[in-house]
Amino acid sequence: MQQFLEESKKVSKEIATLSGEVKNRILNEMADALLENCDYIVGCNEKDMSVGRLGNLDEALLDRLLLTGDRVADMAKAIREIASLKEPVGRTLDGWVTENGLNIQKVSIPIGVIGIIYESRPNVTSDTAALCFKSGNVCVLKGGKEAENSNKAIADILRHVLAKNKLPEQAISLLPDSSREGVANLIKQDKYVDLIVPRGGEALIRFVSENSTVPVVKHDKGLCHIYLDRDANHQKAIEIAINAKCSRPGVCNAMETLLIHKDVAAYILPPLHEAYERYGTQLKGCDLTRKFIDIQCATHEDYDTEYLANKLNIKVVDSVEDAILHISKYGSGHSEAIISENYSTVNKFLNEVDAACVYANASTRFTDGGAFGLGAEVGISTNKLHSRGPMGINDLTTFKYKIYGNGQVR
Amino acid sequence: MQQFLEESKKVSKEIATLSGEVKNRILNEMADALLENCDYIVGCNEKDMSVGRLGNLDEALLDRLLLTGDRVADMAKAIREIASLKEPVGRTLDGWVTENGLNIQKVSIPIGVIGIIYESRPNVTSDTAALCFKSGNVCVLKGGKEAENSNKAIADILRHVLAKNKLPEQAISLLPDSSREGVANLIKQDKYVDLIVPRGGEALIRFVSENSTVPVVKHDKGLCHIYLDRDANHQKAIEIAINAKCSRPGVCNAMETLLIHKDVAAYILPPLHEAYERYGTQLKGCDLTRKFIDIQCATHEDYDTEYLANKLNIKVVDSVEDAILHISKYGSGHSEAIISENYSTVNKFLNEVDAACVYANASTRFTDGGAFGLGAEVGISTNKLHSRGPMGINDLTTFKYKIYGNGQVR
Repeated sequence: MQQFLEESKKVSKEIATLSGEVKNRILNEMADALLENCDYIVGCNEKDMSVGRLGNLDEALLDRLLLTGDRVADMAKAIREIASLKEPVGRTLDGWVTENGLNIQKVSIPIGVIGIIYESRPNVTSDTAALCFKSGNVCVLKGGKEAENSNKAIADILRHVLAKNKLPEQAISLLPDSSREGVANLIKQDKYVDLIVPRGGEALIRFVSENSTVPVVKHDKGLCHIYLDRDANHQKAIEIAINAKCSRPGVCNAMETLLIHKDVAAYILPPLHEAYERYGTQLKGCDLTRKFIDIQCATHEDYDTEYLANKLNIKVVDSVEDAILHISKYGSGHSEAIISENYSTVNKFLNEVDAACVYANASTRFTDGGAFGLGAEVGISTNKLHSRGPMGINDLTTFKYKIYGNGQVR
Repeated sequence: MQQFLEESKKVSKEIATLSGEVKNRILNEMADALLENCDYIVGCNEKDMSVGRLGNLDEALLDRLLLTGDRVADMAKAIREIASLKEPVGRTLDGWVTENGLNIQKVSIPIGVIGIIYESRPNVTSDTAALCFKSGNVCVLKGGKEAENSNKAIADILRHVLAKNKLPEQAISLLPDSSREGVANLIKQDKYVDLIVPRGGEALIRFVSENSTVPVVKHDKGLCHIYLDRDANHQKAIEIAINAKCSRPGVCNAMETLLIHKDVAAYILPPLHEAYERYGTQLKGCDLTRKFIDIQCATHEDYDTEYLANKLNIKVVDSVEDAILHISKYGSGHSEAIISENYSTVNKFLNEVDAACVYANASTRFTDGGAFGLGAEVGISTNKLHSRGPMGINDLTTFKYKIYGNGQVR
């Protein structure tokens, strides 16, 4: 493993200096190669699917694992989108001249070697490989065991394009030892690995955070809220509240608790209740909520749970301040939204809520690399430092200061 | 401790929303207060100095510990410089509109509660307190035991200014339990503390890095190089090579190894040798170097040592590539410099050397918050992520995405 990662580090120096022109041409060749080998990928995926069915993987997981012609086409499309993005390396982020004439330039550079640990969805393999390559980084991918054949097929195709272009295949690699011990080993190799991105269950994230000596950007849970203000537009409010819960309940940017201002609870709760019933959403509510609609009682534990299911808590609050307090107590710093037409209330909420993404009058479901226009994402960072929210190519760069002098001494 | 930090976290919400106008007025009052209480500060510092002398602290440490009227005036001046800097909170770092009309704004916000662990120099107390306050953060300071009275005097004066302005004194605090156990406890409080900056010896940094559950930005060692290229201007070369070693040998941005291109070694080494002899610098060299000047032999261990003393290794290299290889093997990613008038060689060096600060034709000694024009610094980051090089007020901010919609659902 150490030898493998030492080689990754060496390769990262070569990948870091590739021009945007070369990288984009190769990315488009990778997209072509995925389409050309679509049947092969789907075939390998079928092996994973039958193992999954035999192992009684639940339906939601099987759906995440499944690759079809359309899904492979989407993967190719994401790579082309990434290729079309502005070059992330070499951006001048800041620059100034000091009093004694030093010209200081803060410029973006690749991070180096990035380890990504993820589960289920095989498209993550091509998305993250493309994002890392575009940003001049080497990636070491550790997908889930359940997607082993699919991930290997995708990685092999991308690596073949690298080889055809006389570039080291190791720029895109699967972790050679994909056991738990392999992961434990990887996250201790701070000499060769510059960043670890774990995406997955709480146990994995806790294990990596507590044991890694490599810097970690976590893709942790999303316990997201929407606050429906006194001055909300009711139609927008209902559409967004339904969308944020029901369009895809199992994802991290779905809403878990809806907060409603007391002055509008009486007349917005009945139609909301009706709408959620149409979607089969299981509702729980505070005592005040339950005065207006007949649902189960929500407890402290409910407010503290990321359901990842078609379940929702509803709580009536006294004010926007009260909503912000609830969010600061239970929110995971992922995505939070306010529905309001009141200028000052919106500003207060966006300024005071501490989360990666704070929305006014839009669904929390947009916290996503594709929706942000980043082509795809390596993960949704729930860290507070280095990167927050959807991690695209710019978040896969760091910087250095280049200082141009003409003989200055101190 | 937990209760104390819980209060710090609460206070951080209040400090985060202060306007630039208020913060700058208070910073200038802090500068005034330091000057007004100069005699008191110097008196408290004398207590530390006599304890230090009794305890046989070495001269260099005693000099770092010493406060005089002039040094207090410098502390006040640094605070005024920090006050005069552009507001770091609320900067729009990026922004765009997505295809479906979401207006995404990436804006800078304070980090929250920052723990800073440092040694000896009491001016770090006022510098870091001012930088944290300007950037809307709460700081928890843990200075060295040897500077206990000085640090307490400075913190008390700054806190008094906060109280006079009806702001919570806890925005600037000394860690209540300053024992090793206190530090061990602090770095585990990830619920309340958002960032730890350790500056000091290798043992402290290793202890914090390995045990902290709070994100750490390290102020680690500086093993800095200067590469004297074939196309160097000889006068600049000698001035910079002398300055980078001799102006202050005990600091992290001083040079430890000088690399010289083989084509110029013969005629630049003798005058260099003479110049270093005037400064009493102890030289060690590679075999080739020792053909031209009579000095001790440099070993692998020497190249790997941060001397923090008036000692220097000299090595003759074949090319700029060779110099870059040596730096990538031994450098600590702090500050590296090239002396050359050749456009392509300079660009190659600045692009390929991986360090926080890479210099062309200037001394590595400029890696410093004051010299960068940042007023002061919380530390020189040797991390690769979040912050690199001198950490000023902008490095004490993170960001969030504010997303303005008009009813978008997905």
